[in-house]
Amino acid sequence: MIYLAHLFGIIAFVLLLIWLLHYREGIEYGSNNALRVFNVHPFFMYSGFIFPAGEAMLAFRSIPSERKTRKIVHMALHLVALVLGIIGLSAVFKFHDMRHYPNLFSLHSWIGIATFCLFGLQWVFGLVVFMLQAASVSTREKVLPWHKVCGRALLFMAVCAAETGLMEKSSFLSSLGMLKPHQRQSNLINFTGLAILFFGVYVNFSVGS
Amino acid sequence: MIYLAHLFGIIAFVLLLIWLLHYREGIEYGSNNALRVFNVHPFFMYSGFIFPAGEAMLAFRSIPSERKTRKIVHMALHLVALVLGIIGLSAVFKFHDMRHYPNLFSLHSWIGIATFCLFGLQWVFGLVVFMLQAASVSTREKVLPWHKVCGRALLFMAVCAAETGLMEKSSFLSSLGMLKPHQRQSNLINFTGLAILFFGVYVNFSVGS
Repeated sequence: MIYLAHLFGIIAFVLLLIWLLHYREGIEYGSNNALRVFNVHPFFMYSGFIFPAGEAMLAFRSIPSERKTRKIVHMALHLVALVLGIIGLSAVFKFHDMRHYPNLFSLHSWIGIATFCLFGLQWVFGLVVFMLQAASVSTREKVLPWHKVCGRALLFMAVCAAETGLMEKSSFLSSLGMLKPHQRQSNLINFTGLAILFFGVYVNFSVGS
Repeated sequence: MIYLAHLFGIIAFVLLLIWLLHYREGIEYGSNNALRVFNVHPFFMYSGFIFPAGEAMLAFRSIPSERKTRKIVHMALHLVALVLGIIGLSAVFKFHDMRHYPNLFSLHSWIGIATFCLFGLQWVFGLVVFMLQAASVSTREKVLPWHKVCGRALLFMAVCAAETGLMEKSSFLSSLGMLKPHQRQSNLINFTGLAILFFGVYVNFSVGS
């Protein structure tokens, strides 16, 4: 089950890269081409945020080492997700500034920003309670199931954010006549969305009881 | 936790109804107005499919009765979801026919149709194995955790289908200039999406270990 999680995670990464580099304008944060700046957003939000966060959730099962090491890897991968997620988010705000588009009006943006803020809180909470062990052993034992269940809910929300993001972009391209039904690019976007969805599902399966 | 699941389920139902009846064209399967036919789709896919299916998952915890009764309610609510889901699906195919739009090209449609087909299989499987007890007690015991985990994955997928559907419709309305950022209708769609998302999250919390 855990191998399927890794597999779908990597498939989604490869498909996303093919889409952004081959079918779209490429990925460049400092570009004058606003579309290249925009593409930093989907690339970092999946490859930099959802994928490392999912792998961090799997760390307790996939790393052949003692618990303490796994815990450090879990925390560190989530920190990577947090930092790269901030880059991905700032890219879309930069794109909106370049195009004078309004911020945070779509369902995608609402789900995404809510997920990211709650993820930040969950990370700080985890750092203080479990890493720095600010709470007693009994409190940590009581809090752990909640930490897990909230983490799984956040992955669920992050996947919803990714799917709505792909949907928003492909609807926008369709409305401009730049994406036709059943075209190769359209199918590629859909397969990318399914791979991200199945990554979420299999990570959830793998960490579940 | 289970009360929050019911609450978000009902909030989503009310918001969806306000959107379709007040802000959009209303709901009518037999109408000559294609948009009224289309509106049957989101209404039935949430109120007729996702909501009863979620409530069916909660039946083992929310119904104060013996196990056998709960099991029948669980099966019956899923049957309701299956039948009303078929009506919701046929509405969107009818709409596409009326407008000569192609079928099943968007990410929303791929996630939706995959979810619905797998849901149908899961229902038939559950009926044969658990209701008609075609399998031995030991097999049923082995299979039950898989039935649960697949059910939770399907709810996850169904919520993703709903979110991408709302995103597709709102992007389409925006591209026609019929929906402006931060407008009341736009916020209503987003709150509906969040309510459906939290219904999914809290059902998952409630049935989880």
